[in-house]
Amino acid sequence: MNIIEKFNKRIDTAHSLVCVGLDSELSRIPEKYQQAENPQLSFNVDVIEATHDYASVYKLNSAFYEVQGEKGWQAMRETVAYLKANYPDIVTICDAKRADIGNTSDAYARSIYDELGFDAVTLHPYLGSDALEPFLSRADKGCIILCRTTNPGAGEFQELVIDGRPFYQHVAATVCGEWNVNHNCMLVVGATAPEVMQELRQIVGDMPFLVPGVGAQGGDLEATVVNGISSDGKGLMISASRSIIFADDPGTVARELRDAINQYR
Amino acid sequence: MNIIEKFNKRIDTAHSLVCVGLDSELSRIPEKYQQAENPQLSFNVDVIEATHDYASVYKLNSAFYEVQGEKGWQAMRETVAYLKANYPDIVTICDAKRADIGNTSDAYARSIYDELGFDAVTLHPYLGSDALEPFLSRADKGCIILCRTTNPGAGEFQELVIDGRPFYQHVAATVCGEWNVNHNCMLVVGATAPEVMQELRQIVGDMPFLVPGVGAQGGDLEATVVNGISSDGKGLMISASRSIIFADDPGTVARELRDAINQYR
Repeated sequence: MNIIEKFNKRIDTAHSLVCVGLDSELSRIPEKYQQAENPQLSFNVDVIEATHDYASVYKLNSAFYEVQGEKGWQAMRETVAYLKANYPDIVTICDAKRADIGNTSDAYARSIYDELGFDAVTLHPYLGSDALEPFLSRADKGCIILCRTTNPGAGEFQELVIDGRPFYQHVAATVCGEWNVNHNCMLVVGATAPEVMQELRQIVGDMPFLVPGVGAQGGDLEATVVNGISSDGKGLMISASRSIIFADDPGTVARELRDAINQYR
Repeated sequence: MNIIEKFNKRIDTAHSLVCVGLDSELSRIPEKYQQAENPQLSFNVDVIEATHDYASVYKLNSAFYEVQGEKGWQAMRETVAYLKANYPDIVTICDAKRADIGNTSDAYARSIYDELGFDAVTLHPYLGSDALEPFLSRADKGCIILCRTTNPGAGEFQELVIDGRPFYQHVAATVCGEWNVNHNCMLVVGATAPEVMQELRQIVGDMPFLVPGVGAQGGDLEATVVNGISSDGKGLMISASRSIIFADDPGTVARELRDAINQYR
């Protein structure tokens, strides 16, 4: 099944646009997991058990696993395997922000899609589409291209004006127009600038957005949903990480986020 | 010691601008290594032993290790440890093309600089300088920003014209002007477009360039050296990977590359 069909089907089943971000930084994981054979994996399994009813997507932030070396890599792979075995309808994203050229991109694509088993990966646009071909050509997998990010200095390059419109709009138009041959492209669009979502909807139609920045980063949820929702009431993977996974009761926080989003849909 | 001082000192000692790229893809490693406990590590050690006299830099392409999972991660870390223990004057680069925001970039920086122990890392510019602060603020380490890459479609975004000049020149000017507070920035500039090197020298002065694209990718070595050399006869890390490491005699190929470069310096 195409990745976007999988996402849309899960939205209908779970009535949820929530993406739970498993930013499972070892030093922030509660004490009781620290003695486990693999603390990040044990923690993730418990978070998944508490939140899966309310999630359409799980996103693993590769950096927090890589910094733990081999053990982190194992935690990442086994978390994906756990999700596929128990909740195969839920979309899995490797938030790794990769992009290289030719045979190197091919190795990254095999690593993330095949060895780790993710459904989709976040990618940098700077190198152009031929560099990303090993990702884009995988019709069964998803490519989520960085478009407008949440950091305060995002505009340094992303808002440089080219032919009367900001660079990030050129990225959106190019991804939608030329890169999306296999209907497997999506965009990263931060919730900290909800006004850009409406502009981007004009350019890319109903293409799904992965939306970080709600929660710890302070994005406005109502403005995000109202401006960003697609014509079919979908099109958003609204990601919250620390605010869910490090809560005393992750399930309640995830459910409340799902319900708040649905109220604005 | 500052990373660029380290690089310049090594150039003087080894009379070499060669960067050996350890793109040690498992399927291409000779049969005799395949039974080793860690084939990629054993292969790298032999390549290093054959080439270290002619190299100022070793560059490990992270993708080819990541695709082997935990074992690849171990090979990458132990290769860096081997280099530091035996040839501490040689610069080590993690060609990982990372970039994320805030606490995620911080985790990548700790992973690459501290856990894996590299001297420098390649980075995407798209997110802006605040996102890369955990890298840029490390005065003891190096940040090598993607500027003009070697792939055929590099121009798709990199040559979009903003205020009369291509985007990659804006990247170069910004990195040189505002990002380089700790004098630890460099640029990736591909050898497949040597004419851009001269333009970039006008913008960034003697800032070192990491130059892929000589060798298997067909860049013109003479044009690269003539156009790219800095005013002090340095400023280039000319990288060759497959053409050296998979040769029957890697030492000879590395020596010949060193000598060919020095002839044009």
